[in-house]
Amino acid sequence: MISAIAGANVGDSSPYGADELTTQTAQQMCDAFGAAGAFFVFNGTAANVLGVSLLLRPFEAVVCADSSHLNVDECGATERNLGNKLLVVPAADGKLTPDLVASRLTGRGDEHRAQPRVVELAQVTELGTCYSLGELRALAELCRAEGLYLFMDGARLANAAAYLGCELADLAAHADVLSFGGTKNGAVAAEAVIVMREELLADVPFLRKQQMQLGSKMRFMAAQFGALLDDKLWLRSAQHANAMASRLADGIADIPGVTIRYEVQSNAVFAGLSQARIEALRREWTFYTWDESESVVRWMTAFDTTPEDVDSFVAAIRASGVS
Amino acid sequence: MISAIAGANVGDSSPYGADELTTQTAQQMCDAFGAAGAFFVFNGTAANVLGVSLLLRPFEAVVCADSSHLNVDECGATERNLGNKLLVVPAADGKLTPDLVASRLTGRGDEHRAQPRVVELAQVTELGTCYSLGELRALAELCRAEGLYLFMDGARLANAAAYLGCELADLAAHADVLSFGGTKNGAVAAEAVIVMREELLADVPFLRKQQMQLGSKMRFMAAQFGALLDDKLWLRSAQHANAMASRLADGIADIPGVTIRYEVQSNAVFAGLSQARIEALRREWTFYTWDESESVVRWMTAFDTTPEDVDSFVAAIRASGVS
Amino acid sequence: MISAIAGANVGDSSPYGADELTTQTAQQMCDAFGAAGAFFVFNGTAANVLGVSLLLRPFEAVVCADSSHLNVDECGATERNLGNKLLVVPAADGKLTPDLVASRLTGRGDEHRAQPRVVELAQVTELGTCYSLGELRALAELCRAEGLYLFMDGARLANAAAYLGCELADLAAHADVLSFGGTKNGAVAAEAVIVMREELLADVPFLRKQQMQLGSKMRFMAAQFGALLDDKLWLRSAQHANAMASRLADGIADIPGVTIRYEVQSNAVFAGLSQARIEALRREWTFYTWDESESVVRWMTAFDTTPEDVDSFVAAIRASGVS
Amino acid sequence: MISAIAGANVGDSSPYGADELTTQTAQQMCDAFGAAGAFFVFNGTAANVLGVSLLLRPFEAVVCADSSHLNVDECGATERNLGNKLLVVPAADGKLTPDLVASRLTGRGDEHRAQPRVVELAQVTELGTCYSLGELRALAELCRAEGLYLFMDGARLANAAAYLGCELADLAAHADVLSFGGTKNGAVAAEAVIVMREELLADVPFLRKQQMQLGSKMRFMAAQFGALLDDKLWLRSAQHANAMASRLADGIADIPGVTIRYEVQSNAVFAGLSQARIEALRREWTFYTWDESESVVRWMTAFDTTPEDVDSFVAAIRASGVS
Repeated sequence: MISAIAGANVGDSSPYGADELTTQTAQQMCDAFGAAGAFFVFNGTAANVLGVSLLLRPFEAVVCADSSHLNVDECGATERNLGNKLLVVPAADGKLTPDLVASRLTGRGDEHRAQPRVVELAQVTELGTCYSLGELRALAELCRAEGLYLFMDGARLANAAAYLGCELADLAAHADVLSFGGTKNGAVAAEAVIVMREELLADVPFLRKQQMQLGSKMRFMAAQFGALLDDKLWLRSAQHANAMASRLADGIADIPGVTIRYEVQSNAVFAGLSQARIEALRREWTFYTWDESESVVRWMTAFDTTPEDVDSFVAAIRASGVS
Repeated sequence: MISAIAGANVGDSSPYGADELTTQTAQQMCDAFGAAGAFFVFNGTAANVLGVSLLLRPFEAVVCADSSHLNVDECGATERNLGNKLLVVPAADGKLTPDLVASRLTGRGDEHRAQPRVVELAQVTELGTCYSLGELRALAELCRAEGLYLFMDGARLANAAAYLGCELADLAAHADVLSFGGTKNGAVAAEAVIVMREELLADVPFLRKQQMQLGSKMRFMAAQFGALLDDKLWLRSAQHANAMASRLADGIADIPGVTIRYEVQSNAVFAGLSQARIEALRREWTFYTWDESESVVRWMTAFDTTPEDVDSFVAAIRASGVS
Repeated sequence: MISAIAGANVGDSSPYGADELTTQTAQQMCDAFGAAGAFFVFNGTAANVLGVSLLLRPFEAVVCADSSHLNVDECGATERNLGNKLLVVPAADGKLTPDLVASRLTGRGDEHRAQPRVVELAQVTELGTCYSLGELRALAELCRAEGLYLFMDGARLANAAAYLGCELADLAAHADVLSFGGTKNGAVAAEAVIVMREELLADVPFLRKQQMQLGSKMRFMAAQFGALLDDKLWLRSAQHANAMASRLADGIADIPGVTIRYEVQSNAVFAGLSQARIEALRREWTFYTWDESESVVRWMTAFDTTPEDVDSFVAAIRASGVS
Repeated sequence: MISAIAGANVGDSSPYGADELTTQTAQQMCDAFGAAGAFFVFNGTAANVLGVSLLLRPFEAVVCADSSHLNVDECGATERNLGNKLLVVPAADGKLTPDLVASRLTGRGDEHRAQPRVVELAQVTELGTCYSLGELRALAELCRAEGLYLFMDGARLANAAAYLGCELADLAAHADVLSFGGTKNGAVAAEAVIVMREELLADVPFLRKQQMQLGSKMRFMAAQFGALLDDKLWLRSAQHANAMASRLADGIADIPGVTIRYEVQSNAVFAGLSQARIEALRREWTFYTWDESESVVRWMTAFDTTPEDVDSFVAAIRASGVS
């Protein structure tokens, strides 16, 4: 990744994405996704906000899972920067279903109600689960039938494609707009908004600039995505990270007092274990407490996690229950 | 009410609330509420939005019941005009509790999370229920302990005071800012924002103007509130409306197939009955379906509902089940 | 006006503008303006904000005169509630010209620039001047040629029609959306947004609600406009107010040390006179200082100004210079 | 710069700026500026928007030059993301003066007017000019006397310090908040918001996150600023760029038909020349037309511009007038 950035640091080039490397990489991404356009932004929050902003009028709302990044982890960026309402659905395993979405489609045509217009789902979800292709199809069909748009938060789309064994285009085909994450897959700071519908393209440059996401030296962001797409580095990295999560899940499956909370379908393991064990582990390891009240933690693996890392961690978990 | 408006239509007067009638009426309201200031606006949505806007920085959020007017019935006005996030709590009977509020106080100090700052409750709630004075005290204490503000949506505060047999000031004492509804209590178009804390007053005129709620002929709004406050017309009207709702509830209590869904504590009766009956009643009467899927309707009484109106309606309900 | 409101206070009726009186009055207004739809709001700021909001995407801007109400007198309501930028043009007599508008049409298609999309003009302007029908036509033609919308702030449109001796429809024909003021022409609190293009109608109810301008008892606002339209009360009132301004201008024309700053083409006279005279007059009369540094004041006449009022005021001005 | 990024790519580290490199670099910046805090963002537009957002309540406005980046080149980002109004002043050479600022301080305390609160100036200005330290002091004194904040857009602050021969802290001392540009001084994508007042720090992390400027791998941004600060690379780069602009200005001083429009006080030369010459030059060189109607172009030099580049360009300009 660093050598890709260094490779982009050669000679003069036009700023603000008018350079050749950016143009080529965007085209490469369109080819990979079967998309009409690809636009780089700085982080995942921005990719979500820019993405849904292409699809909303001021009085329209986004249906999303209560656990979604858009709802929980972006400090209210959608409400602040766009002014649109989120219609939140409790989704047990982080996944929307047609029935859950349908439960928020009341009051259409009633001027007192914000009007549902976008269904936002994350593939991989915040809980590490993946939608099957059939589940995506069912949601896309509901959207079509109900005149809704589908936005897919793909901060970890690579991990989903790796888990499902499908192409990026197979996932993108169900969305109107989606994001594709680079940062969680090895990039320094690069995310993309992928637009599937030609008629949505014209406004993107203005909205991206206004949302403070236009870089003057765009070629460095393009270079990172070029590196991810070449030889499908994105896939190998994601497959590896997923494999490490599976190794972790397998390793702890038989440890008494440790439970796995959601099916491990990507690079995350959610585990329930006692506060005492959590504290013991924290002396040596850094991880995130997902749910304080339920004593659930989240363990993430990455492109650079080694089997030895995992095995040491499994041993530490096992040891944490001994005393 | 009309004669109050006509009474204000005499001679010249300063515009934008600088007239004597507006000043006097605002003082009269401060006296009634034990408040630092009172400001008129055009409707209930505006009163809520202006009210919470006094209490929020851009990254702060409002904890409210899922059924609240602020969340459901204002077409996303808070998100649009203020940009602040709502943190919604499922409240079975429309009422927040300290435990429900506490469930949304996670992630404080974490920059990824919108920070809870205002607890918004409606007295009367959207489901027609009232907080007891003890319940209000418990919520106010939680707010004080947690550094939260309390905003009370008082679109029907008169009905709550009538039900509880307390003064408006007894209710207002638990809030930092509240609204007081005129329109649902007989006014033509007049709501008020009541500010309990001196240090919040300075910004109100600017925020009210910016939120498009400054009338040039404010004296006509003041006149309506003057009429409501004189001889406690607000109380007599609300007592009457409440009594009519009780009469309705009593009248239908023994009708088979008709169930009352929430305790009747104001001027609303929520009833479950069959679709066939609903349709039969609709031929002669106009009312709102509250929940299509559960077949629940809402019947409202008002200051001008007569006992005869109620009795005819009870008879119609009874008859609707006969065929 | 008051009797019109009282007349609307009869019997039950559907809330939120679904009543017959509102429907009829809206139709009456469409007929008078040759419009596709008419919508009531509470004040002039709201009429402007709702009006331009129908015409703007997030990254688009409004070209307007530096002295315009939208720019100066609304506490930044457009920027706050809509988030759109104003592109301000210095207009000596308050009137835009095709050349002034053209000066702000740079950077179109450049993502770094907010994109000009709406031309906003006031008829009557803030400086009391009126566009001739030819001037309006020239601006409308520029808009058509350049793909711009034209919004007309008609808070005092009646005065312009009275001055020009034309129909409301003759003025409206040059706009895509306009406002029509009731409050400055005798109404208690009623302004209207007039939509000339069918395809803009669908979003209005949602945007009006979200912008906190939907009254539950809309029939009272409708009644005020009904009264203004019946027998062209709006015209008689405006003609009278204009005549009183002319009488004032004529009366002071020969007073030494008093200069009239803008052509008197409506119900306003802008006059320059010494601070000493201004202070002397203020002991008995209330008026607005337009420009402190230039010692310019604004004197407004209204539907209820009498010739005697004017003559006394002229005498007072004359006397103010004596001592 | 690239090697600094590569250097940061070692081992694991805490995300979102909690790593040691980010902490250290922020402290290093505080030391250089005499500041209370330093925060990294992705681009100059974001630095401006985040910066002024620390200083504004919803109804307050920013006084700025008509040519300012904030006003012209950010696609309305301030109005969109913050909702605050800009009060624009025509500034002939891009520089505000106390008199120009004072001309926008009317209507304070009047609820109809957005209230001026922040004076925004760029050092270097958009026209390549620099404020002297005395000019900055005079503006800062006006701000203090009038209860205004001063925000300094320092996208090219390094060039100003190089031109004036002063320390960064000498410039920062006059501001309440400022930005410091990395990207135009060699960084890949890194700008900083520098906060001079302790009491403004607490909200920054939330506002930065909400404004979509929090990077998960912040250490790479920190590394770029570390490289700029070490051995004052920022100064050497800026001195070089400034020297190249002077060389260009000197080289063209005697070319007939080419005029220099603003004093060359940084790394920009604004020149007026005929359209024919502009077109001839464009066949080989890329530059920006500043003002189409006045036939003015902007030529920028950078840290990597060589004397030979400049001399070839001068020769080309000279030759362009021959035919």
